[in-house]
Amino acid sequence: MASWENPVPIAAYLSFSDLETRSLLDSQDALLIDDARSRTYDAVCVPLATDKWKDRWRDMCIISSEPGRERNESTELRAENWRANPVFELGEVTMTRLEQAEGVIVMISDWLELDASDNWVRHDSEIAMQQELSYASYLDIQTAIFPPPRNRNQIAAYGRAINTCLHGYLTCTNSPPRGSSPPLVSTSSTTSSSTPIRSPEPRAVTSTEAELNITWESLDLTPPLPSMSGVLNRWAAEPIKHLFVPASTFIANAKGYPVLPKGAQSFIRDILKHRPAVILSDTTAGLHVKGGEAAYLQYVRHLDKTSPAVIQAKTAGTVENFARGYQDYLQAPLQPLMDNLQGITYQTFEQDPVKYQKYEEAIYAALSEWPLSERIIICVAGAGRGPLVGRCLSAISRVKCNASVYAIEKNPSAYVTLQQRKASEWKEKVHLLFGDMRSLAVPEPADIIVSELLGSFGDNELSPECLDGAMRFLKPSGISIPSSYTAYLAPLSSSKLYNEVHAGKDDKAPETPYVVMFQAVNILSGEGDDFEGRCGPQIQECWDFEHPRRDVVLDERGLPVTNSHNIRSAKLTFHIPHAGVLHGLAGYFEAILYGEIGLSIHPHRKDHISKDMLSWFPLFFPLKESLYLPSNSELQVSMWRLTNQRQVWYEWYAESFLPVLRPPAETPSGGGSMPRVDGRGSFMTATSTPFVPPSPLIDAIDNPFLVSGDRLFKEMTKRVEEVSKIETGVVKIGQTSLHNPGGRSSWIGL
Amino acid sequence: MASWENPVPIAAYLSFSDLETRSLLDSQDALLIDDARSRTYDAVCVPLATDKWKDRWRDMCIISSEPGRERNESTELRAENWRANPVFELGEVTMTRLEQAEGVIVMISDWLELDASDNWVRHDSEIAMQQELSYASYLDIQTAIFPPPRNRNQIAAYGRAINTCLHGYLTCTNSPPRGSSPPLVSTSSTTSSSTPIRSPEPRAVTSTEAELNITWESLDLTPPLPSMSGVLNRWAAEPIKHLFVPASTFIANAKGYPVLPKGAQSFIRDILKHRPAVILSDTTAGLHVKGGEAAYLQYVRHLDKTSPAVIQAKTAGTVENFARGYQDYLQAPLQPLMDNLQGITYQTFEQDPVKYQKYEEAIYAALSEWPLSERIIICVAGAGRGPLVGRCLSAISRVKCNASVYAIEKNPSAYVTLQQRKASEWKEKVHLLFGDMRSLAVPEPADIIVSELLGSFGDNELSPECLDGAMRFLKPSGISIPSSYTAYLAPLSSSKLYNEVHAGKDDKAPETPYVVMFQAVNILSGEGDDFEGRCGPQIQECWDFEHPRRDVVLDERGLPVTNSHNIRSAKLTFHIPHAGVLHGLAGYFEAILYGEIGLSIHPHRKDHISKDMLSWFPLFFPLKESLYLPSNSELQVSMWRLTNQRQVWYEWYAESFLPVLRPPAETPSGGGSMPRVDGRGSFMTATSTPFVPPSPLIDAIDNPFLVSGDRLFKEMTKRVEEVSKIETGVVKIGQTSLHNPGGRSSWIGL
Repeated sequence: MASWENPVPIAAYLSFSDLETRSLLDSQDALLIDDARSRTYDAVCVPLATDKWKDRWRDMCIISSEPGRERNESTELRAENWRANPVFELGEVTMTRLEQAEGVIVMISDWLELDASDNWVRHDSEIAMQQELSYASYLDIQTAIFPPPRNRNQIAAYGRAINTCLHGYLTCTNSPPRGSSPPLVSTSSTTSSSTPIRSPEPRAVTSTEAELNITWESLDLTPPLPSMSGVLNRWAAEPIKHLFVPASTFIANAKGYPVLPKGAQSFIRDILKHRPAVILSDTTAGLHVKGGEAAYLQYVRHLDKTSPAVIQAKTAGTVENFARGYQDYLQAPLQPLMDNLQGITYQTFEQDPVKYQKYEEAIYAALSEWPLSERIIICVAGAGRGPLVGRCLSAISRVKCNASVYAIEKNPSAYVTLQQRKASEWKEKVHLLFGDMRSLAVPEPADIIVSELLGSFGDNELSPECLDGAMRFLKPSGISIPSSYTAYLAPLSSSKLYNEVHAGKDDKAPETPYVVMFQAVNILSGEGDDFEGRCGPQIQECWDFEHPRRDVVLDERGLPVTNSHNIRSAKLTFHIPHAGVLHGLAGYFEAILYGEIGLSIHPHRKDHISKDMLSWFPLFFPLKESLYLPSNSELQVSMWRLTNQRQVWYEWYAESFLPVLRPPAETPSGGGSMPRVDGRGSFMTATSTPFVPPSPLIDAIDNPFLVSGDRLFKEMTKRVEEVSKIETGVVKIGQTSLHNPGGRSSWIGL
Repeated sequence: MASWENPVPIAAYLSFSDLETRSLLDSQDALLIDDARSRTYDAVCVPLATDKWKDRWRDMCIISSEPGRERNESTELRAENWRANPVFELGEVTMTRLEQAEGVIVMISDWLELDASDNWVRHDSEIAMQQELSYASYLDIQTAIFPPPRNRNQIAAYGRAINTCLHGYLTCTNSPPRGSSPPLVSTSSTTSSSTPIRSPEPRAVTSTEAELNITWESLDLTPPLPSMSGVLNRWAAEPIKHLFVPASTFIANAKGYPVLPKGAQSFIRDILKHRPAVILSDTTAGLHVKGGEAAYLQYVRHLDKTSPAVIQAKTAGTVENFARGYQDYLQAPLQPLMDNLQGITYQTFEQDPVKYQKYEEAIYAALSEWPLSERIIICVAGAGRGPLVGRCLSAISRVKCNASVYAIEKNPSAYVTLQQRKASEWKEKVHLLFGDMRSLAVPEPADIIVSELLGSFGDNELSPECLDGAMRFLKPSGISIPSSYTAYLAPLSSSKLYNEVHAGKDDKAPETPYVVMFQAVNILSGEGDDFEGRCGPQIQECWDFEHPRRDVVLDERGLPVTNSHNIRSAKLTFHIPHAGVLHGLAGYFEAILYGEIGLSIHPHRKDHISKDMLSWFPLFFPLKESLYLPSNSELQVSMWRLTNQRQVWYEWYAESFLPVLRPPAETPSGGGSMPRVDGRGSFMTATSTPFVPPSPLIDAIDNPFLVSGDRLFKEMTKRVEEVSKIETGVVKIGQTSLHNPGGRSSWIGL
C-alpha cells in the first residue's frame, strides 16, 4: 500500500494487442516498466498469457460444433496429457525474462471460467489457472489478478477453485523457486454484482498474511456503476489494493477533457484512502478529444490530491493524521484500574488539544453557577500526572472563586509527578491524596468531583464502579464532571479486522473487544427503516450511566452493597438496507461533562461536540463466526454489561431477521410475563415469532429497480392486506453464538 | 440413559403440596425414593424449593402494588444483602438430608424468569437459579431440570443466563464438595414453541461431556401437542433424557382407563428409543375413573414394550440390534486401499447375512444369461478372506456352467487365508493372484469382474479408481458387479453429533466425514416443495459411477492418463418445511449389482432393496459452524469429489435461501456463459439472484394456520402478480464456510 506522502501509483494496462502494436510482446530488449515510465506511469499491468494459449486451451477443453473443431480421440488425448502435465508452449505467454516481469502486475486469463456451468470447463479452467499462477510465481511476479465470478449459480465452485489455487500456490511456495518470492494473489471484482460475493473463508487455508487479505483486492470500475451509493460502500470494508479504471469510465467535460461522472468521482476519492494502485486502460484509444493519454493520469492525480480522506490524513491536528499507521490496528483496551499506566501513556493522552479544553470549560461553567460567597471543594478523582488539576486551577482563577482542589491518585509513580508539580507549580492550592478513591479517607466532602475514567465504550474502563466509590465524599448537593455518559453500537463489516482477529490460533481472540482506528470498515445499518420504525437509527444508544446516582443501597462505609446496579443490557434492532457480512460491532461513547459541554466519538456527532479530539479510537467487538445479512433485513443485537463482586465484562449476540408475509393467526408473544404462581405450573407456554407491523417483502436488489419495485410493492402490500387480511412479520434467518459467556475472556478487574 | 434390556425408568412427580399432604416435605424419617418405589415408580422428581422461598424472593425482587408490599429502603437493603450472599432460610427447601436427596430429580423453581422483560427480574432470577443449582450440587443431586424459556423477546437473555449458571456450576465442581458429583444440568422445553429454541452454543463454555449435552434434555408433553408431526420430529435430534407427562395428557379409553391420544402415543413410542426417564405427574388426582395411579405406569410400560424402535433394537438380525452401542458414535471411515484390514474387520463384515446373498444372486443372474457353451472367466477384484469367491463358486455350481475364478488380493495377511482356503476348499476351481489390481498382470481377460469396494457414500473407499485399474483385464463385452453405484445426501440436524465433532480442540475434526449409526438426528428437508418443484426430494441423488466406463482416455498400459474423469460435483436444493439448525449432511449409497439386484442404505429404499443388511452405516459430513434454517426456506448444498494424481477428497458448502417477492426487472443469470473472447474483456458482468418460479412468502409457522395461510397466500400471489407484475424469487440468507478446502483433512490415498 502506498504511503500517505506519495501519490497513489498509476499503472498502464496493456492488452495483448497493445503489446503487439507496441512490439513489447515478450520483447527481448525493451522492458515493459520502462515503456510505462516513459509515459509517466508508475507501473504496468498486462495479461500473462497470449491468444495462442487461449486458442490451444479452447481447442483442447471446449466442445465445439465449428467445422474442423469437433472433438475426437486425439483431442481428448491431448487434453488428458495436458491435464497430467500442464505446460505452456512457446508464444503462449507474454513474458519469458525475469527482467521483463519486473514491476509488472499480471492478469490471469479472464476467459477462464472457474464458474462455468459445465463440470469439465470448470475443471480445466482450474488447472489452467494453477498453471498461470505458478508461472507468474516462477517469473517472481508480485501481483496476479484473478478474473471475477460471472455465474451466480456456480459462485461456490468459483470460491472453491480460488481457494485451491491459493492453497496449491501456498504449498508450492513452501519450497519456492530460487530467488522467487510469493506473488500477492488478488481476486478481482466488478462493482455491478447485485449480491455480495465473498471469496472463501480465509480461515479455510492456513493463516499467512498473504492469504488473510484474500478478499477483494482489486476492483473494476468499468461502467455502469451501481446507482446506489450503499452498494459501493461495501467496498470500503475490503482491502482494495488495485482499482481498474478503463478510459470508457470517463466522460468528456465541457472542454472535451476526460473526467469522471460525479458518482465515480466521489467513490474513488473516498477509496483512495486505501492507497490502491490505479490501473488505467484504453487511454491511448482516443476516446476523448482533448488531453490525450496524459489527461487521464493528470485527472487521477488530481482526484488523489483533492480526496478529503487523503487531505485529512495529511493535515496535522486531525484524528486521521494523529492515527496514521494505526488504521485497522487492533489494540487491547487499557485497564487503568488494574494496571498502573506508564508515563509515556499519560503523555500521549495529555497531548489531546480538545479533551482538556472541554474539561476546563465544564469546570468553568460549573463554578460560574456557584454562589461566589461559598468556598468550593473540587476533588480530582484519578489525577494521573495532573492535567485536570491544572485545568481546575485555571478555571478557578478565571472565575475568581474561592475554591480548593484535592487530587487523588492511586498510581505511585504518577503520584511522584504530582508531588513534583505541587512543589513547583501548585503549592498550597492543591492537596494531594494517595490511594484508591474507593477506599481512601478524604478530609472534607467535595462539591465537585472531576474524573477522566472513560473508555472508548464509555464505561469499559470501570468509571461507574470507581465513581460509585467516590460518591462517599461528594456532598448531597454535589456534582460529578462528567455528569453522564452513553455507549453506542453499530453493526460492522470488515473482512480485514475479522481476519486479523482470527489470524492467531487463540480461540479467545474473538471474545475480546479491541480498540481500533477504523478504516477498511463498513457500517451495515441504515438510518432506520421506513416502515413503522421497528428499527432504530444507523448507530444506536446501548445504555448510559449518570453520576451522582442517588438510588443505590449503601453499606455503613457508604459503598454499594453489590455492583448489581451497574449491570446493563440492551437489545437493538438495526435495518440492513444492503446485503453484507457482519464481522462485529463498533462501539462508541458520548459523555456530558457539564450542561452543554461534552465529549463524543459518535461518528455523526463528534465533529459537532468535540472536533479533533484524539484520545479515543472506537471499540471493536468481533464475532467468532461472521453472519451473512441479506438486503432489507433486520439485525437484532443483544449486548450485556455483567459483573460479579470482582469483575466486569461484556457479552454479545446477534440474530438476523427477514420480513415476510404470514397468516393472521399469530398473536404477539407476552412481553414481560410476571412470575407464574400456579404451583409447579406447566412448562407449557405459547412462544411465537413476535407480531410486528407491516414491512416490505422485497429483497432490495441493489439496482435502480429497487426504488420503483419498492414503491410498487408498498402499494401492493396495502391492497393485498385489504384483500386477504394477511399480516406481515419477520422470520429469524440466522444467529451468532453467544460471545464471551461468563466473561471467560476480556475480564476487567475491579 | 437406560439400557435396552431394562424398561425405561418411570418417575413420580410430587408437587410442593403433594409433599405436604404425603408429609414428605423435608421428612426426617421417610425417604422420597422409598415412597416412590412403594408405588412401583423407579425414581422421583420434586421441586427443590418451597413456596416460602418463592414468597421471600418475590417480596425482595418483584415490585408490587399490593398494599403492604410496596418497595421501600428496607426491602431494597434485604434484596441487596441477599444478592451479596444468596442463602436459603429454613423451610425454603424441600430437602436438607443427603439420604433424602438420593435418587431424586429436582426441578429448579420454574417461577423464576431468566427471560423476564424487566432487567432486575432477570438479574435476580439468575442469582436465585445459581443459588438453587449450587444447593442441588451440595445435596449431591444428579439431575436438575431448568424451567423453559417463555418470552421470545428475551430468549437471548435466557440462553445467556443458562450458560452462566452452567459455567458457574462447572467452576464450582473444579473443587467439588467432598463426596459430591456434578449434577446433570438439564434444560426443559415444551413441545409447543413455534420457533426452535437453542440453548447457547455448547462450545461457548469449556468442553466437558456434561455441557456438550446441554441442549434439551427434558421434554414436557403437557397438552396440546402441536398438530404437525414435523414439529415434533425436531426432538428426535435432541438428546432427550427426561419426558414429562402429566396425567392431563391422558384421555380415557372406552373402559375409562387412561390412554394417550394417537399423536402423543406414536411420538412417545418413537422417542423412547432415547431411553428417557418418564416423569408422571398428577397421577393421584383421579383424573380418570378407572385404574387409579397404577394404570398410568402400566400404560407407559406398555408403550415401551410395544415401541417399534425398541422392538427392532431387541430383535436379533436387525441393523438396530446389530448397531446397539454404536448409535451416534463417530467412526473414521475405513481406507482399505491405503490400510490393510485386520482379520477381525473382515470377520465382522463377512457376518452380513444379506450382502453376500445379494452378491450370489447377482452373479447367478449374470451367469444364467451367458451362453452355456462359453467358458466364463470370473475375477474377484479384492477378494479379502474370500467370501465373494465362495459365492462365485456356489453360483457357478447352481448354474452348472463352465467357469473359472481368479481371486486378486493385495493384503498379504488376507492372502494367507486365501491360500489356506484354496488348499482346503477351493482347490483348482480358484486361481489366486497376489497384488494391486491396478498394476497386477492377469493371465487371461475376464468376462465378469466382481468387487466389494463400496463405502457408505459409494465411492468413498475409491471403488472408481480401483476398478479403473481393473478394466485392463475385462473383456470388451465384459461386465462389472456392481455395475453402478449412486451417492445420496440429506441435510441433518443433530446437536449431539455436532457437539461431539467439536468437543476436541482439533480444528480439522469438522473437515472429516464420519461413519455413524444415526439415532439422535433429524433430517430437515421435506419431500420437495409444492411450487414448481424447484426443490428435490427429501434425500437427493448426488452423483453416480458406472463400470465398465468406455469413454476414458487410456495410456499404453491401459490405465487412465489422469483421474479427472472421476471428479464429481453436485448442487442440490432442499425444501426446509420446519425451522431447524443444520449441523451437517447425511451421506448414503445405493448400488446396482446386476439387473434388478442391488444394495442400498437409502433410508426410504433399503428395506425394499436389501433389508437387514448390516455392512454400512451412513456417512456424516459435519459443519464447522451450524447454520440456522427458517421454516419454508430452501437449502442449497454444494458437494465436490476432487482428486489429484495421489489423492481423492470431498469438499462441501451450504447456502440458505428464503422465498420473497421482488421486482420484475431481474433477468435470469446466464447459466453457462462460454469463455468471452473480447480481448481483455471487461470484468463487468451482470450477476444477479437467479430468476425462479413463484413460491410462497409465508414463513410456515408451525401451527394449523399454516395450511390455510398457505393456500390463502397462493391465491393472493396470483392476484398480486396480475395486479403488479411482481415476480417472486429467493434471497440468500446464510452460508457456511467451505469445508475441507484443498482436502486438507480426510485425504483418501490412491
